[in-house]
Amino acid sequence: MSIQHKKLTIGLFGFGVVGEGLYKVLQQTPSLNAQIKKVCIKHEDKKRNAPAELFTTNAKELLQDEEINVIVELIDDADAAFRIVSTALRSKKSVVSASKKMIAEHLPELLRLQEEFGTPFLYESACCASIPVIRNLEEYYDNDLLQGIQGIVNGSTNYILSRIADDGLSFTDALKLAQEAGFAESNPALDVEGIDAVNKLSILLTHAYGVVVHPGDIVHTGIRDLKPRDAVFAEEKKLKIKLVAQAKKLSDGSIAAFVLPQFVSTANSLYHVNNEYNGVIIESGLADRQFFSGKGAGSFPTASAVLSDLSALRYGYKYEYKKLNTSKGSGLTDDFYIRVYVSFDRLLQVPHHLFERVDEWNSNQEGCSVSGILHCSRLRDSWWKNDYTSVILYPDAILEQSELPARQSNELAAIWDREAVS
Amino acid sequence: MSIQHKKLTIGLFGFGVVGEGLYKVLQQTPSLNAQIKKVCIKHEDKKRNAPAELFTTNAKELLQDEEINVIVELIDDADAAFRIVSTALRSKKSVVSASKKMIAEHLPELLRLQEEFGTPFLYESACCASIPVIRNLEEYYDNDLLQGIQGIVNGSTNYILSRIADDGLSFTDALKLAQEAGFAESNPALDVEGIDAVNKLSILLTHAYGVVVHPGDIVHTGIRDLKPRDAVFAEEKKLKIKLVAQAKKLSDGSIAAFVLPQFVSTANSLYHVNNEYNGVIIESGLADRQFFSGKGAGSFPTASAVLSDLSALRYGYKYEYKKLNTSKGSGLTDDFYIRVYVSFDRLLQVPHHLFERVDEWNSNQEGCSVSGILHCSRLRDSWWKNDYTSVILYPDAILEQSELPARQSNELAAIWDREAVS
Repeated sequence: MSIQHKKLTIGLFGFGVVGEGLYKVLQQTPSLNAQIKKVCIKHEDKKRNAPAELFTTNAKELLQDEEINVIVELIDDADAAFRIVSTALRSKKSVVSASKKMIAEHLPELLRLQEEFGTPFLYESACCASIPVIRNLEEYYDNDLLQGIQGIVNGSTNYILSRIADDGLSFTDALKLAQEAGFAESNPALDVEGIDAVNKLSILLTHAYGVVVHPGDIVHTGIRDLKPRDAVFAEEKKLKIKLVAQAKKLSDGSIAAFVLPQFVSTANSLYHVNNEYNGVIIESGLADRQFFSGKGAGSFPTASAVLSDLSALRYGYKYEYKKLNTSKGSGLTDDFYIRVYVSFDRLLQVPHHLFERVDEWNSNQEGCSVSGILHCSRLRDSWWKNDYTSVILYPDAILEQSELPARQSNELAAIWDREAVS
Repeated sequence: MSIQHKKLTIGLFGFGVVGEGLYKVLQQTPSLNAQIKKVCIKHEDKKRNAPAELFTTNAKELLQDEEINVIVELIDDADAAFRIVSTALRSKKSVVSASKKMIAEHLPELLRLQEEFGTPFLYESACCASIPVIRNLEEYYDNDLLQGIQGIVNGSTNYILSRIADDGLSFTDALKLAQEAGFAESNPALDVEGIDAVNKLSILLTHAYGVVVHPGDIVHTGIRDLKPRDAVFAEEKKLKIKLVAQAKKLSDGSIAAFVLPQFVSTANSLYHVNNEYNGVIIESGLADRQFFSGKGAGSFPTASAVLSDLSALRYGYKYEYKKLNTSKGSGLTDDFYIRVYVSFDRLLQVPHHLFERVDEWNSNQEGCSVSGILHCSRLRDSWWKNDYTSVILYPDAILEQSELPARQSNELAAIWDREAVS
């Protein structure tokens, strides 16, 4: 088959592990008809595995070069990335970016720029690296039948959780290992506080449901406050703790979405997603459940997604964000309930009045835990944001008002009060 | 975002479960800007859930209608399907097809037609229904780094194997259940003899490696000759038997490919693909292992893949078959070895001279089994194609000459001969 495509002449920002990976792969893929003309870097004097004449520190040499028709942006600084991407889109240069933080925080502006200038802006690598989740949400689930998404979208935290569960490491030791293996963000807080995951969820929400929401407005946490006792509890019940980004369409069309640790059972595909792998379950009325997994971190998996975007640019592909137009009015809601396990150091810390219902509680020398049902809005308050509390969802955690079991009698609460006093 | 696309005016062949599913979904997806103008059916007098004026029994009403710019072909008859598809491609109508048998058997002609007329021909639903495996092989793995594919690509046999392993059913009862659930092809031999799976593998080989090979030339079998004793053996070793279609690039660039039952361990993602689900592992030097799973049979999963192809047609997407040009000379080979378990009814049936090496053998009242290494070309002979023999691969079954353990002494063979005589 010989099909004529636009030749891609690329200006690349960033020559870290992903940028260098991409450079190597393009050399091995002449059939793609894509060539890196210039690479803009920050530090001139670093040694690089590519000819010196390829590099510049002057962004304008790329952004003002009329021959360059694609900008690939792979830098770590979200503010600089946004300046580069918005300038490129205004100059009608197609853009491929891997900067999830930048995209999540600037989505409204980026949508406006794409609309105004009609320039393609692709960022498959920003969510789950090598897994083509954005493309699938755009192309497979471009109808109203998408019911839910659950994903392990941060490879670093999943690696840490695997080390804790499988090797019995402490959180600190596991984090160190993740950093040594190169899976952690340069700022580990982005990973372990769930910020990277919620950035990705906010991008996915736009493609899945046409919802544009700032990641800061989505309920989220990471894995830093998980306790050894939580790992023991999970193991006893043959469950694994995973940091899950999820969204679900409720019966009134509004969307429940959050990033929280969750117990998953072996029946859930995410149970089998370990180490630095990512996995996403997409539930739809049409295709039932689809599951995708692959490496979610690392240079080559990310470069592979960038390569796929470049390939798509050749035939003029762009995201259409169809659901921005079709899903009028429905947005995120906090008006639903979640089944949770909450653990505390001491019984007196337990704000039991917050619970709609308490199903089980335990207290011993290690600490205490409560299993019950919370209204999601309770997580907007700060009671659980401290280092003696951890909140973990049960499987199938989301409940609507109509699914709520009858409110329990006060009996358990009364015992609890007595225990707390004694 | 408002992007102008070609309006798709569809002529649909076939109104079975998939066709009707597609009809319903298109009505629920006005944003796709695609409309079914006419449906060609075989039996005029069947009752259908759509207006009578939509239907015709005259194919020309679709193929000669200039307003119709897309033919969707969803019929069961491979010969008729090929006539429809080739006529449509010659008339420069884009085609979406789900007929794996037709595509696998006519791939060379279909490639020529696409080349000559430049018409897009998409068939994502022909492999693994809802899983976008062809698109991913085209877009993600459009380079020389693809190392291997392993897939459960037939939902019906996987459903049967799950019923046997999980519920202890006999093959016959499990097949009956699969048929009742609507997972089996109208001709169950296509499923249980591995023909459907090898058809899909031949399509995947073209997109993965640029190899065009008739499915009949690929070593394959199904699950019909598996014995209860094989299921017991698997269970004892905590393995599952799956029908796996696989391909692997060998060190000289040639491709090993076959469809055979295989023992898979819990470490393999395919272990967790059960019932009518399909799953595909793609191994690449770039993205490492990616795993996709989803429903591989049923009306809506298939319709969802058709929908995705229609969506892609709007922006002019077509398969490029890039590897047909780039992978010159390398084709399928039988020159490699496989680790197998072979079971027989009686010891005298065992052709032990065929084995490069025997690692273990067992004989009891139920039958006997041999674990060892065979040269793949041995499977071109008919010794194993009978109802008293079953061949099952071990995990990581493929060995090259250089990986072969030293040939064993004749000791075991001698014992065997004595046993056989006694």
